[in-house]
Amino acid sequence: MAPSSSSSRPARHHLPLLLILAAVFVSLSGLLASVPTSAADGLPELGGDALHREILRDETVQRIKELGKISDGEGYLERTFLSPASIRATAVIISWMKDSGLTTWVDQMGNIHGRFEPENSTKDALLIGSHMDTVIDAGMYDGSLGIISAISALKVLKVTGKLQRLTRPVEVIAFSDEEGVRFQTTFLGSAALSGTLPESILQVSDKSGTTVQDVLKMNSFEATAAAITQTRYKPESVGSYVEVHMEQGPVLEALRYPLGVVKGIAGQTRLKVIVDGSQGHAGTVPMKLRRDPMVAAAELVVTLERLCKEPNKVLTYDEECGCFTEEALAGLVCTVGELLTWPSASNVIPGQVNFTVDIRAMDDQVRETIVTSFSRLVLQRCDDRLVDCRVEHKVSRSAETVPVFFVPDDRWS
Amino acid sequence: MAPSSSSSRPARHHLPLLLILAAVFVSLSGLLASVPTSAADGLPELGGDALHREILRDETVQRIKELGKISDGEGYLERTFLSPASIRATAVIISWMKDSGLTTWVDQMGNIHGRFEPENSTKDALLIGSHMDTVIDAGMYDGSLGIISAISALKVLKVTGKLQRLTRPVEVIAFSDEEGVRFQTTFLGSAALSGTLPESILQVSDKSGTTVQDVLKMNSFEATAAAITQTRYKPESVGSYVEVHMEQGPVLEALRYPLGVVKGIAGQTRLKVIVDGSQGHAGTVPMKLRRDPMVAAAELVVTLERLCKEPNKVLTYDEECGCFTEEALAGLVCTVGELLTWPSASNVIPGQVNFTVDIRAMDDQVRETIVTSFSRLVLQRCDDRLVDCRVEHKVSRSAETVPVFFVPDDRWS
Repeated sequence: MAPSSSSSRPARHHLPLLLILAAVFVSLSGLLASVPTSAADGLPELGGDALHREILRDETVQRIKELGKISDGEGYLERTFLSPASIRATAVIISWMKDSGLTTWVDQMGNIHGRFEPENSTKDALLIGSHMDTVIDAGMYDGSLGIISAISALKVLKVTGKLQRLTRPVEVIAFSDEEGVRFQTTFLGSAALSGTLPESILQVSDKSGTTVQDVLKMNSFEATAAAITQTRYKPESVGSYVEVHMEQGPVLEALRYPLGVVKGIAGQTRLKVIVDGSQGHAGTVPMKLRRDPMVAAAELVVTLERLCKEPNKVLTYDEECGCFTEEALAGLVCTVGELLTWPSASNVIPGQVNFTVDIRAMDDQVRETIVTSFSRLVLQRCDDRLVDCRVEHKVSRSAETVPVFFVPDDRWS
Repeated sequence: MAPSSSSSRPARHHLPLLLILAAVFVSLSGLLASVPTSAADGLPELGGDALHREILRDETVQRIKELGKISDGEGYLERTFLSPASIRATAVIISWMKDSGLTTWVDQMGNIHGRFEPENSTKDALLIGSHMDTVIDAGMYDGSLGIISAISALKVLKVTGKLQRLTRPVEVIAFSDEEGVRFQTTFLGSAALSGTLPESILQVSDKSGTTVQDVLKMNSFEATAAAITQTRYKPESVGSYVEVHMEQGPVLEALRYPLGVVKGIAGQTRLKVIVDGSQGHAGTVPMKLRRDPMVAAAELVVTLERLCKEPNKVLTYDEECGCFTEEALAGLVCTVGELLTWPSASNVIPGQVNFTVDIRAMDDQVRETIVTSFSRLVLQRCDDRLVDCRVEHKVSRSAETVPVFFVPDDRWS
């Protein structure tokens, strides 16, 4: 559900945060029965009202900092699926949900729910959520902002006596896994809710050999296929979903925009490139006789960057038109995040080097063209260097358009 | 003493091995009193004598295989300074030395000695040795060949009753550390014997925090500065040193030469390059806004290769004449053996990448020019990419000429 998140550093000031919270607040205000949109009851309170400052700004920031300290790592933030830090974070998030007047529970995949059910409402619910897990060395706003801002907005409604006037159920969800750091499979939390998590997930292992089923059992969950199935929400019970998320890149900050609206989710391809060369002694194999996978891999990393920075210059084949428009190329990014050498010693020419490739674009055709073209270049360059290369396809997801119902009115301009 | 060794795979046949052993045998034969170099007593036995086949070929190969199985790793060969496998190997090597009629002891840095002292000899000794430690995923001949071939040669002298006729002491030494894998500092064994090991070595730590002193103590060595000093051999007690070593590169094999003589040891510079960029989300930071240390590092790896493959094309500055002769460039090799990314996740643009650089050449001026030029290129390229780079100098050793006293006569042509 949520676009995967970033490890960017916290922003230096709280103004954009306050505006984001105001956005959630407005979103909720739309659900209030007989709420005039006049100045008396709506947003003009924002600047002056101590309550808004205290809850929407000061307490929210303080809670984001508090959650950002609950980490499995020392000196950096890391919380993975059902890790010790995640269990500690669960207790804290539940206490904040209760403080906002919500009924709480944890489902069979470790997602935390905090729901307000208006009396006699038969309407479908508004879900507001984000992920509580993090990448390694994450920024503290990543995921947490969406959970805590929703809790804060509902707290203001509770404190001002407006919670009872909501016309439909509202539920805050803290998803147990979105990043997929521990089990290398993303969205464990939201996939269970949307009914797209396969039973086979129970047998997937983390690096230590612990399976999803093991870790669920260790934490007293049922850990059965049936329990996963029961976690699913019926589509008719959900009216809409909104997620506030910190910006995952530097664009809004560079443009000094406090807020942006997500219109789509980029398609993604993840590859693994394995380069096998000839291991040898760093001092005694002449340069000309080397089949060095390190240099071959390095060349491919540079090639990938050029392909994504200037695709129209690199793509020359007929089937790759080489004439993508600027618009089609929007969001095209390519990343090598992990590169491993074996045996990894300063005086040994590596025998094998492998690296990950992450390619994303809003246009699926662009992404597929880049993937095809890169795969072809890998084989060409490896042939030239007499090393053996394989390209493994790990993940391929099409781009999606995200429905946007909320459009800020001109009070936010 | 020994040039550092390789992890090349074992050769496919034993003919070169037999010739190498014959070389050690000839070297020893030169020390025999009143030994005619005639066919009756010398080398012509080699082809036909069952004793030579049994000891110099079959038993030697079998022992190399046996030692190659004593490993700290499973499925690959790794023995580091005083590791559990090294301790097991020590017992085995001592038993083989005794089997050759040698008096054995282990000195205070874990070197194994096996010595034959002729009666009433006051001459300085011939030392024959190699290293018993290995790189990670080493080949089984690396180091072991020099130890076992010396033991085998002496065994033939013992069995044929010629040991007593040696005119000077002969001592086989298995050096405890040459590769420096565990403590990242090479030649612990031979440096102690030659008196060049500083006292401060005792405080150097391995990755787990265990110091050299700790590991010496754990293995019941004295582990004091005084003990290290006592390990030193007085120069006047040593006449010469010879080491048989497998080829560390592919040149002899490619030329089908069974044997080569080392004439020098290349100078070496080890650098560590640290590239700091801007960590970010793989999906959301536009290519143009990235300060990606992975691509910068990859570009530097490719640059280093080009610099060492075609130095005269790359070196353009006045002070770097760009006119090195082919002879001066002999042995110039550059290697990146280890490259680490942080945080090392497929969906995160790394924040830091660092890599090792190993530069060697027979001509010190060439090596120093390459190092200077590469360091300058690092800063230039990093400036262009807006990433921060540091080049740390780890090791710098001048080239050395090795005295060669033994020249195979025409029986070996």
